[in-house]
Amino acid sequence: MAKEKPSIPQGTRDFLPFQVQQRQYIFQTIKNVFENFGFLPIETPAVEKLSTLTGKYGEEGDRLIFKILNSGNFLNGIDESFLESKDYIKLSYQICEKALRYDLTVPFARFVVMHQNELTFPFKRYQMQPVWRGDSPQKGRYREFWQCDADMVGSDSLIYEVEFIEMYYQALKNLGFQNFTIHINHRQVLQAIVDLLNFSDKFMDFCVAIDKLDKIQWDGVNKELAQKGFNNSIIEKIQAIFEPQNSFIETLSFLKSQFSDLSNGLKAVEEIEWIYEMVKASNSEILNHLTLDLTLARGLNYYTGCIFEVKLNDVKVGSIGGGGRYDNLTALFGKEGLSGAGISFGIDRIYDAMNELGLFQDLNLKNPLVYIAYLDKNHLKKVFEIANFLRNRNIRTEISSKNDKLGKQIQLADKKKIPFVLIMGDEEIQKEIYGFKNLNTGEQKNLSIFEIVELIKNG
Amino acid sequence: MAKEKPSIPQGTRDFLPFQVQQRQYIFQTIKNVFENFGFLPIETPAVEKLSTLTGKYGEEGDRLIFKILNSGNFLNGIDESFLESKDYIKLSYQICEKALRYDLTVPFARFVVMHQNELTFPFKRYQMQPVWRGDSPQKGRYREFWQCDADMVGSDSLIYEVEFIEMYYQALKNLGFQNFTIHINHRQVLQAIVDLLNFSDKFMDFCVAIDKLDKIQWDGVNKELAQKGFNNSIIEKIQAIFEPQNSFIETLSFLKSQFSDLSNGLKAVEEIEWIYEMVKASNSEILNHLTLDLTLARGLNYYTGCIFEVKLNDVKVGSIGGGGRYDNLTALFGKEGLSGAGISFGIDRIYDAMNELGLFQDLNLKNPLVYIAYLDKNHLKKVFEIANFLRNRNIRTEISSKNDKLGKQIQLADKKKIPFVLIMGDEEIQKEIYGFKNLNTGEQKNLSIFEIVELIKNG
Repeated sequence: MAKEKPSIPQGTRDFLPFQVQQRQYIFQTIKNVFENFGFLPIETPAVEKLSTLTGKYGEEGDRLIFKILNSGNFLNGIDESFLESKDYIKLSYQICEKALRYDLTVPFARFVVMHQNELTFPFKRYQMQPVWRGDSPQKGRYREFWQCDADMVGSDSLIYEVEFIEMYYQALKNLGFQNFTIHINHRQVLQAIVDLLNFSDKFMDFCVAIDKLDKIQWDGVNKELAQKGFNNSIIEKIQAIFEPQNSFIETLSFLKSQFSDLSNGLKAVEEIEWIYEMVKASNSEILNHLTLDLTLARGLNYYTGCIFEVKLNDVKVGSIGGGGRYDNLTALFGKEGLSGAGISFGIDRIYDAMNELGLFQDLNLKNPLVYIAYLDKNHLKKVFEIANFLRNRNIRTEISSKNDKLGKQIQLADKKKIPFVLIMGDEEIQKEIYGFKNLNTGEQKNLSIFEIVELIKNG
Repeated sequence: MAKEKPSIPQGTRDFLPFQVQQRQYIFQTIKNVFENFGFLPIETPAVEKLSTLTGKYGEEGDRLIFKILNSGNFLNGIDESFLESKDYIKLSYQICEKALRYDLTVPFARFVVMHQNELTFPFKRYQMQPVWRGDSPQKGRYREFWQCDADMVGSDSLIYEVEFIEMYYQALKNLGFQNFTIHINHRQVLQAIVDLLNFSDKFMDFCVAIDKLDKIQWDGVNKELAQKGFNNSIIEKIQAIFEPQNSFIETLSFLKSQFSDLSNGLKAVEEIEWIYEMVKASNSEILNHLTLDLTLARGLNYYTGCIFEVKLNDVKVGSIGGGGRYDNLTALFGKEGLSGAGISFGIDRIYDAMNELGLFQDLNLKNPLVYIAYLDKNHLKKVFEIANFLRNRNIRTEISSKNDKLGKQIQLADKKKIPFVLIMGDEEIQKEIYGFKNLNTGEQKNLSIFEIVELIKNG
């Protein structure tokens, strides 16, 4: 077999033990919040039928889906003309029937339709699994990355919008974040603005421009609007509507006054108001992290009601979460009339931000706690007996692989970041009193195995 | 967008909430054992370079690897002659640079070589991730399935063989299995047998046949050996060596007497004897589950020392685990001289066996504990306040999506397998004493929220 210098594909990652544990800590913290709110885990296969995914993510998405070559003779029975004309796109659909999961939302819709008779609606699920996209990799963007979604399907009640805000707040607090903002907006508010100012035909152009306000300021937005054919008078009126108000409540009042003749707009404002009141009733502290952001205009291809986005105020990693209400997601797979809503956490960005803020510093890594060093191979029977005793008490224990000089064994324990070394020699075994060294303090005591267990269990 | 009847690829699976939780319970139980023995988690990407995997699993393996079609125009720059000759195998290596992980061992070897400067040897890692193989799916065999491996690399000490036996024992006990056997053998024992009887050239033929003894008995083995050119006299001698002895220790003595002139054979027997003694010192109860099985001859393409296999005695699912010592695994990627050893758990078979034995019956699923029912939408402020109170105490709580008739709300809680319903009406809210119904017993009490928390926390 040829020897090769090993590497991994662009945009993929290996995770070392400390990284796996840090990431697991994030997953576990969010999972606990999801479960406290009554969401349950599902898992779907990494490999879906290509036809399940195609056409669900737009043209750009179709291009970025990783396709899996059919097993066996994939050229069998294909349309030869695509081969001759080298139409690689059409050819790819002939030689590939499967593809890698591109997100968790479309597989969730497929899952709900396939398993509808096994589920109780409203169905609340969470899912934390990797997805794959053929984007060109760059800092913070990977070809294999994790999504972490909670979705509810089967109810149009706004209690879920309230709960999603609570869940963002609780998860980020539990992870140790202090300075974050949950942005909320509503598709029908944006719609009412275009209706009010009479440019409904330019809804998407308007949304794309206004969504960039925090990045390119009014100068940039106005320029973009002008390019899209908005005249100066309209641009001024737009700017007036987006004039910041003093508070969440004042923004709501302002919108109500503007939308007095637009029933859909008023309804949207009332929905946001209700959500605000309920969040306040649940935990008024959350309001310090909640903002009504009229410029939030993401995901309008699928969101039909409220829209959420979560940002950190003190770390420049972009958005760390987003979500909203979508009607009729499962219609893609033939099941009509199920309203849904969901949120997503951007695990990779959360990981980077936690590193930047030092939030992993106190994380208890699951390194072994005790390293057993011994001076003679003949001590090993006692070593195994003692190791078994410790492990049965859930004390993570590693046995030195050889009876090197004691100093060398201790050095290796230190290098492995194991805090305690238990030392065995003839005398120790005879007296059943072992040397027990704390590598953090350097202190060494002579203790019975019961005293050692007590010392570790009580910190 | 076209509506389609959704399905998933052959050999892949969706997991419903109860299945995810049952599987997570298995992973978590094994993980705790791995960590108690000082193993740490790593993760590698699902997608590896095709060149990393090719040639590592034999010709059959190469055929079963799922290849990922290159992004963009995959026909660009390929050797046209393969296209013209329709040589699909050679063509596949031109249009695919990436592939799905086929097992966890080769990626582990790659990982160790790539990250050798970041690791402390002996390096002990565990890994629980899915792998993909293009086998034809059948009962209990999937195209996407999970492997769960613990490996040590960088030491030739036999303490790891002892620990692996302890780990199998502990993990299976913790999962609730009573009736299982850990089979141990040694490649050099098999080698000594062929050396002793002078047919070293037929080592593999001999191993393949003898490994089937428990399935096809001596009649079948002898027939197969005869087909491979073994004569009757040799076959009789082989059968004499495999005559069952009364105990582990007697088998060792018998082998010593047979191998008196074969130093490698004697060394292998002494290794097994040492392992036996150490297992006994650690926990003699394990010996009831340990057997020296001379017919065990799996994985001889890579195992160089001890070989393990684990079987359930009361469920017909085949082997649920296997492992052994391999020298020089990382040589594949240019790093020589690292001896390693490892074991693997067959999660899918363990799952099936646990279902068959009813071992999941007492598993505490993470369904919500409390369902809040309410009689009027105006109660929702109080509902959210109470839900927040419960969730802050880690009590999983779901809020009814609408103020249906109370009976209907309770019915839905029951369908969702939520054990308690908290009932809110005008009077309850005024008195701050809520109806609290146990759906398992049917009993209903009027309790304050503090009494409710206490009742739940104390079971």
